[in-house]
Amino acid sequence: MNANDNAPALEFWFEFASTYSYIAAERIVDLAAKAGVRVAWKPFLLGPIFQAQGWNDSPFNLYPVKGRYMWRDMERLCARHGLPFAKPALFPQRSILAARLALALEHEPRCPAFVRGVYRANFAQGRNIGEHAVMEAALAEAGLDPAHWIARAETVKDALRAQNERAVQVGIFGAPSFVSGNEIFWGNDRLEDAVAWHAEVTRGAR
Amino acid sequence: MNANDNAPALEFWFEFASTYSYIAAERIVDLAAKAGVRVAWKPFLLGPIFQAQGWNDSPFNLYPVKGRYMWRDMERLCARHGLPFAKPALFPQRSILAARLALALEHEPRCPAFVRGVYRANFAQGRNIGEHAVMEAALAEAGLDPAHWIARAETVKDALRAQNERAVQVGIFGAPSFVSGNEIFWGNDRLEDAVAWHAEVTRGAR
Repeated sequence: MNANDNAPALEFWFEFASTYSYIAAERIVDLAAKAGVRVAWKPFLLGPIFQAQGWNDSPFNLYPVKGRYMWRDMERLCARHGLPFAKPALFPQRSILAARLALALEHEPRCPAFVRGVYRANFAQGRNIGEHAVMEAALAEAGLDPAHWIARAETVKDALRAQNERAVQVGIFGAPSFVSGNEIFWGNDRLEDAVAWHAEVTRGAR
Repeated sequence: MNANDNAPALEFWFEFASTYSYIAAERIVDLAAKAGVRVAWKPFLLGPIFQAQGWNDSPFNLYPVKGRYMWRDMERLCARHGLPFAKPALFPQRSILAARLALALEHEPRCPAFVRGVYRANFAQGRNIGEHAVMEAALAEAGLDPAHWIARAETVKDALRAQNERAVQVGIFGAPSFVSGNEIFWGNDRLEDAVAWHAEVTRGAR
């Protein structure tokens, strides 16, 4: 099946510091293509959303028992999906530059390649995505001009703030989230459900 | 396949006030039977575990955006699995009597029928499982003598406290959780993974 270019896209809301968003970013391209579903890549920042709930850190750090579970769960899931994984020394990493870059790239065909490269840097390659040099390398590896896109990232600061406000309005509280019309699906575990739902919407079956 | 009576059981840790535990309780019997896996039913209370994290209510009430999502997610999941569902007027409901009863019943063949009846009372039938009369009806519907088991529930108060302490020691922080040896699987979404893992352990493949 080919995606219908005129149909509304399934929105994939992701945070570069989010572990489960890594797995979803790796899986969504093939799953959506098989279902004939277009994907809109929506970077956002969980930090402001967590702060509004009274959290000044990742809940996986604030609640260490849950954090220990999450890292083991990531090991098992990545093994099952054949994804490389190495627990980063720093978590969560500062993701604002990566988010601005992904937003600047949202209409570029190479956006997904860049996004997946950033996730591998964070969760498989032991790099710190908060560093400019790491972002430049990720752009270059995705076939994108680093200097050009780093400059463009400076121009989307307000747009990223607006994107985050929209996330809150939609009812997003975590990452990854998938949005199809008024339906939100939260978590990598809901990716198949979200794609199936959106495929039905696209076909007019819902 | 028949479950091997000598093999260690997959531990199913559930809280009667937990929405996703309802779905897991309905699904685990068939899934485990098909995989030849024995299940040990482990009622516990999330309240003390949440209080130790600084929460004095369900996170779905403390974080209303997440709560709204959860109720919609429950609607979708119950529809998919063919389970009756009606959002209870009171959430979370007081589950200590139900938990004591389930612990008193842990070695009874009718324990799963009682557990599933309590979940349906809470999440499908608009009843309050904190009421003695509702528990007596659930016992009777499961073919169990209400007076006998209500009296027995009084004798397992310390045992339920010890069960909760073990949950904390194991690293459980939410419900449902499934425990196979040193592995914890959290959430109804992990039920298939937990059963498959435990089946491999039982066969000596892990």
